[in-house]
Amino acid sequence: MKKLINTPEDVVDQALAGMIAAHPGYIRVEEPNIVVRMDAPRPGKVGVISGGGSGHEPMHGGFVGMGMLDAACPGAVFTSPVPDQMLAATKAVNGGAGVLHIVKNYTGDIMNFEIAAEMARDEGIEVTAVVIADDVAVKDSLYTAGRRGVGGTVLAEKIVGAAAEAGADIATVTALCQKVQDNVRSMGMALTSCTVPAAGKPTFELGDDEMEIGIGIHGEPGRTRMKLATADEITEMLAGPILDDLPFKAGDEVLAFVNGMGGTPLVELYIVFNKLAQICEARGVKITRSLVGNYITSLEMAGCSITLLKLDEELTKYWDAPVNTPALRWGV
Amino acid sequence: MKKLINTPEDVVDQALAGMIAAHPGYIRVEEPNIVVRMDAPRPGKVGVISGGGSGHEPMHGGFVGMGMLDAACPGAVFTSPVPDQMLAATKAVNGGAGVLHIVKNYTGDIMNFEIAAEMARDEGIEVTAVVIADDVAVKDSLYTAGRRGVGGTVLAEKIVGAAAEAGADIATVTALCQKVQDNVRSMGMALTSCTVPAAGKPTFELGDDEMEIGIGIHGEPGRTRMKLATADEITEMLAGPILDDLPFKAGDEVLAFVNGMGGTPLVELYIVFNKLAQICEARGVKITRSLVGNYITSLEMAGCSITLLKLDEELTKYWDAPVNTPALRWGV
Repeated sequence: MKKLINTPEDVVDQALAGMIAAHPGYIRVEEPNIVVRMDAPRPGKVGVISGGGSGHEPMHGGFVGMGMLDAACPGAVFTSPVPDQMLAATKAVNGGAGVLHIVKNYTGDIMNFEIAAEMARDEGIEVTAVVIADDVAVKDSLYTAGRRGVGGTVLAEKIVGAAAEAGADIATVTALCQKVQDNVRSMGMALTSCTVPAAGKPTFELGDDEMEIGIGIHGEPGRTRMKLATADEITEMLAGPILDDLPFKAGDEVLAFVNGMGGTPLVELYIVFNKLAQICEARGVKITRSLVGNYITSLEMAGCSITLLKLDEELTKYWDAPVNTPALRWGV
Repeated sequence: MKKLINTPEDVVDQALAGMIAAHPGYIRVEEPNIVVRMDAPRPGKVGVISGGGSGHEPMHGGFVGMGMLDAACPGAVFTSPVPDQMLAATKAVNGGAGVLHIVKNYTGDIMNFEIAAEMARDEGIEVTAVVIADDVAVKDSLYTAGRRGVGGTVLAEKIVGAAAEAGADIATVTALCQKVQDNVRSMGMALTSCTVPAAGKPTFELGDDEMEIGIGIHGEPGRTRMKLATADEITEMLAGPILDDLPFKAGDEVLAFVNGMGGTPLVELYIVFNKLAQICEARGVKITRSLVGNYITSLEMAGCSITLLKLDEELTKYWDAPVNTPALRWGV
């Protein structure tokens, strides 16, 4: 296992300490290991929180800040955070206008966020939740009843965070998050496995000439394992099922998000984007916004995922709105 | 070789096409393969260009845009661009106020930028050049007389681009670039090699329990090859020589830049930043600005580099100024 770490046990804590050191004006870390926007709670503002296992950085801690998340709950690597974290985050960002939980569809996350929501409600905080389940690769999965929550989560957090920043109420913010979920689809692939530090060996084995299409962000099995193909062929294999699923139709405007899994260089992601743009154009689907880079990763896994979000005026407006977080920053 | 590519020959062209597709409002690509800011040339503005081999993305093409570079010249992977590219870029961004060439210290880059500068001067364009040579690892190197140009280049391009945007003249912009060079130091390391697509095999061999301290961004040998150490130990091995070299002194304010080589996940870079912050604090060196992520990469190499820039009021002001490029964006 070749990693820039000290001990597997210290990975999450030391990375959080590094985040605070690098971005002191943005975020603070509170017990029990939650990342909180520096100026939270903001009276009258709907709080927006998310969380999940670590190892997907910058998601979610890197998205805490003005115009996006108010707090994030990082679990151990690839492990759900505990309800105490979600409860603490909910209380830390409660400005009296309610708190939305953005939950990726994994059994542990769902269960723990539900427990935390009940506890917060017992303390008089209005809590809503939206489950992101945008991965078209498989119907159920290793840690999932139903589709997995993947790249759409990043877009939901940006868009919903902007609406909350603009003063939308809890019902509006919650409905907007559901609207993102209803209009976003993703699929990913891996060229290599990743290694969870505490495990010390690759999560799965993949031959030197093999790839996994439809991979999950924890290395869960996808649709098919096959011989390595070209970037264009791989992009077809991901974009086709995404476009067919919603379905995206001629005339639709979309945000196209090509995400790196952590170990794939940017130059390759742009080659994928090039083919994706051609595929969309051939179907009459118009890419009006884009995001290219490592935003929801799987440690050092090599590979990529594609996410398409069908845009309308409201979603575009909130996507474009200012954001000021460690990982996404514009307009300020 | 596991990469998201089509053929080794198409990597640079298809990645550039993907960049244009993803960022249509920012940049255009012109013959012979140069990336140009959409609104160049801007009358009366000093043009700032850079360039070098591809494989270091987002550098340089991802830094073209408002407040940073006016154009970039990407060569083949790890290969200098040709003088025709540098001449075309110089002419494309010439607004009549002169053009600065920011040149990383590699023999091919130096030679070709000098040829292009002469050709541009023959056409009546005022051209200045500053050589970035910030890598303290080795005195000379495989492709270098003197120190290599590495992470400091990113900071120089940002700061100098802001000054040019603000209307500084060619002498001021050139002197500012030299000031960055005089105050910036870097050093990197690798956990793994990378594979140049056209070569099809790793640039160098590194054992499963080995790392290379002082690596170059093309995989050039560093100071020492040794057994894998902890992130804290590695950070000491990089930060010590950097801090000693300028030297950085108690009371200095610095921009601390922890850069990923391409295959190392963000979570590990923050662990390095955490230790770097402790080391700086122990020496009384105050980190007032930071940058953490993959900005000057070596394809899919795993590893990191550290860059420290001694700041003053002028450098800080231009670092903070608005920038709007595919890879760095704030304030707009």
